[in-house]
Amino acid sequence: MEKKLKAWQGWLLFGGTMIIVFVLGLIVASLMEHRAEVVSIYNNKKVDIKGIEPRNEIFRDNYPREYQTWSETADTSFKSEFNGSQAVDVLEQRPEMVILWAGYAFSKEYKTPRGHMHAIDDIRETLRTGAPKTDKDGPQPSTCWTCKSPDVPRMMESIGVNAFYNNKWSAFGSEIVNPIGCSDCHESKTMNLHISRPALREAFARQGRDIDKATPQEMRSLVCAQCHVEYYFKKDGNYLTFPWDKGMTVEKIEEYYDKANYFDYKNALSRAPILKAQHPDFEIFQLGIHGQRGVSCADCHMPYENEGGIKYSDHHIQSPLASIDRTCQVCHRETEETLRNNVYERQRKCNEIRTCLEKELAKAHIEAKFAWDKGATEVQMKEALNLIRQAQWRWDFSVASHGAAFHAPQEVQRMLSHGIDRALQARLAIAKVLAKNGYAADVPMPDISTKAKAQKYIGLDIPKEQKAKKEFLKTIVPRWIEKAKANGRFSKI
Amino acid sequence: MEKKLKAWQGWLLFGGTMIIVFVLGLIVASLMEHRAEVVSIYNNKKVDIKGIEPRNEIFRDNYPREYQTWSETADTSFKSEFNGSQAVDVLEQRPEMVILWAGYAFSKEYKTPRGHMHAIDDIRETLRTGAPKTDKDGPQPSTCWTCKSPDVPRMMESIGVNAFYNNKWSAFGSEIVNPIGCSDCHESKTMNLHISRPALREAFARQGRDIDKATPQEMRSLVCAQCHVEYYFKKDGNYLTFPWDKGMTVEKIEEYYDKANYFDYKNALSRAPILKAQHPDFEIFQLGIHGQRGVSCADCHMPYENEGGIKYSDHHIQSPLASIDRTCQVCHRETEETLRNNVYERQRKCNEIRTCLEKELAKAHIEAKFAWDKGATEVQMKEALNLIRQAQWRWDFSVASHGAAFHAPQEVQRMLSHGIDRALQARLAIAKVLAKNGYAADVPMPDISTKAKAQKYIGLDIPKEQKAKKEFLKTIVPRWIEKAKANGRFSKI
Repeated sequence: MEKKLKAWQGWLLFGGTMIIVFVLGLIVASLMEHRAEVVSIYNNKKVDIKGIEPRNEIFRDNYPREYQTWSETADTSFKSEFNGSQAVDVLEQRPEMVILWAGYAFSKEYKTPRGHMHAIDDIRETLRTGAPKTDKDGPQPSTCWTCKSPDVPRMMESIGVNAFYNNKWSAFGSEIVNPIGCSDCHESKTMNLHISRPALREAFARQGRDIDKATPQEMRSLVCAQCHVEYYFKKDGNYLTFPWDKGMTVEKIEEYYDKANYFDYKNALSRAPILKAQHPDFEIFQLGIHGQRGVSCADCHMPYENEGGIKYSDHHIQSPLASIDRTCQVCHRETEETLRNNVYERQRKCNEIRTCLEKELAKAHIEAKFAWDKGATEVQMKEALNLIRQAQWRWDFSVASHGAAFHAPQEVQRMLSHGIDRALQARLAIAKVLAKNGYAADVPMPDISTKAKAQKYIGLDIPKEQKAKKEFLKTIVPRWIEKAKANGRFSKI
Repeated sequence: MEKKLKAWQGWLLFGGTMIIVFVLGLIVASLMEHRAEVVSIYNNKKVDIKGIEPRNEIFRDNYPREYQTWSETADTSFKSEFNGSQAVDVLEQRPEMVILWAGYAFSKEYKTPRGHMHAIDDIRETLRTGAPKTDKDGPQPSTCWTCKSPDVPRMMESIGVNAFYNNKWSAFGSEIVNPIGCSDCHESKTMNLHISRPALREAFARQGRDIDKATPQEMRSLVCAQCHVEYYFKKDGNYLTFPWDKGMTVEKIEEYYDKANYFDYKNALSRAPILKAQHPDFEIFQLGIHGQRGVSCADCHMPYENEGGIKYSDHHIQSPLASIDRTCQVCHRETEETLRNNVYERQRKCNEIRTCLEKELAKAHIEAKFAWDKGATEVQMKEALNLIRQAQWRWDFSVASHGAAFHAPQEVQRMLSHGIDRALQARLAIAKVLAKNGYAADVPMPDISTKAKAQKYIGLDIPKEQKAKKEFLKTIVPRWIEKAKANGRFSKI
């Protein structure tokens, strides 16, 4: 009996061991397959790519998954509560913005952004770049191309950074033809992330930081921060510069601009010297809890995807809300609906105050114009104009970037509060100027209830602009493309 | 050889089993000890407690750990960045608040809160309750006692709820003598959480909700929500009422008060009909992420503690920052320093805007008074006064509660933004009224740089108030205590 029991125990041990060994074998096999496929990517490269390669299609065969998902940035179908589709006419939704930008090209056209694949088409088509007829013509400098294409680092290497910036936008129409893609973020030989634009590297250096010491995780944000930041074109040469020398908050950047006596334009109504914010995504992101916890841009905007044995970054850069299961839910255990509503709630609260500020700012510009018309002097208006500048800077810094209301909701609300304070202080100052000039009634308000009405009020002739743009797209752009083709700027694939 | 191996295998199995059984035994023993100690609490009660027992000391022998930690609420030594100690003179720090409360008792004295153990002392000692000489005397109604003591439900049971509210504060000086304690939240026989005050139950009923169906986790917040909410004394009978019928946000509660034409006082300077916010902790908490995720008040303010085999709730209710290891870190994996700084950052941003709003509101009140002095009419002032009411309601609702800036930072910033908007719209309206009455210069501002100066400006005689209070504490209060002792209102332990 005892002997039988011992034999039974032995077999149990033997059987158990067999099962464990078998499962281990399966796991190792899976690991080997995984590793084999990863190795295959680097060993079986089909194309040998060297230097700065702006033609995105060249990368397709080597990196089919990344290429495929990158090409999906052409898809603009994702809809969120705050972005009906990815090409909404913002000026139509918020005609007050036409007033805020009176005297600046943004008052002509401003749409919600589309994917990276549209970068070249969109900059050619917007009314903001005008309708240049020659390569020494048009309203914008060549610096405007800087974030639009991997042709930019190629050109900078070829003609030098200063020469690249110090030109008309139209001068490089036949050179800059491939939309934002591979070489903007990747070094072509190793596919390591790299910094392809000088402005970020220079800004780091002036802060005493060495960008080459950034960790891989930091690089997953820094490649984005080459463009998704606040910047300006430094006078004389339009040298693209990040205004980070005093710090990266709305106040510190304003201090930098104030010290440089910088302004982007004088508002055509109020004559206030205005700072136009670009898209300070990176600055604001760092002030929110995700940035503070070390999450990178790519963690949410380029979530990992599995296909067979391969794990890769989804290069269809878009709102994380489009794939909550692969973004938010990597860390958060709530349902998709809960998480989506958490985001919308943050956006809704910011938007509420944004709308309030926008209306007050538009009134301030219109009332300032009224005060000038009533004979106000420069000395009388100085305080009000400075307050308008401060208010609009806070408004623009809060709303110009992508997703600020989610990236750092409390910081955005803080900035907007100061914006409301300054906008209304400006209105109060103007009311006192008017009272001193003998006017005590309310300032009559023009009808700016639609984009067209607001644009007409500030004196824009949009049909004329549209006609010229149409002509430009029909005659000049095809010539650019033809010349680019002849010079081998496109891939032949 | 084979036989030897089998024997070895058998012994291994035997030994392994022994070890597992031994460890299991240890675990079970530990569980039994735990359970035994829990059972002992309920079976070995030393005192049999029945009905509403307001004498907190009676509970000491049955629940020594809870009693001990509750008694630690007398400790006011915890310091945070935003609360130097738990009895800071807020009016000294922010003299503008004297202006905001001109014509209301809060302008006389307003300190940061101390622990529950001080409730009775503090309400007797504050200048706000005055120096009544008889039980039909003094500025405050008996409703003011409602949140201060477990003597309150005893009295309500004894004389009826209406009769309890419809009296002078001084009428119950000898009845309400035990500070906030056991019976406020616990049913004395089972120690189950219970709702001891009618206002919360009634507010739920009017919302169509049955508070008796609340889950145990909800009760861990609802017992706090009996007092830590917005409420008002309904005219004629001073019946304590929660204004939740239209909703629980700052706007919905305002709508409720507006419809009832309710105001707490008219500001003595501006004559604006002001709503005084109480401490809407519960309302605001629900709008923040912790409330939305189902965290209860007790989870953070009464964290679990282990002692021997017993796990119990720490009844030293205080800031969760005082024991981050037992509060935040139950869920969050960051360091204490990181978590503390996350809280401070939220508070700092809210405080920044709060300060800004406070200053604008004080100016609005002062400028409104100036306009009245210059002969402004009721009709001319109506809009400005309504805007001041709205602005101050948003300010007070944002700052009057405990920890709102952390509970729901974005909501607080949103409310403060609207507050700034309304305060400056009021100043703008007043500037126009002044302009119409022929005054175009800046309104001269009084020196309100200290509490004393601000109190003098609004016409308060604080030394006189203090003298009367001193006399009251020396003569009336000892008589109250003597009478309470004679009537057995205190425990003899």
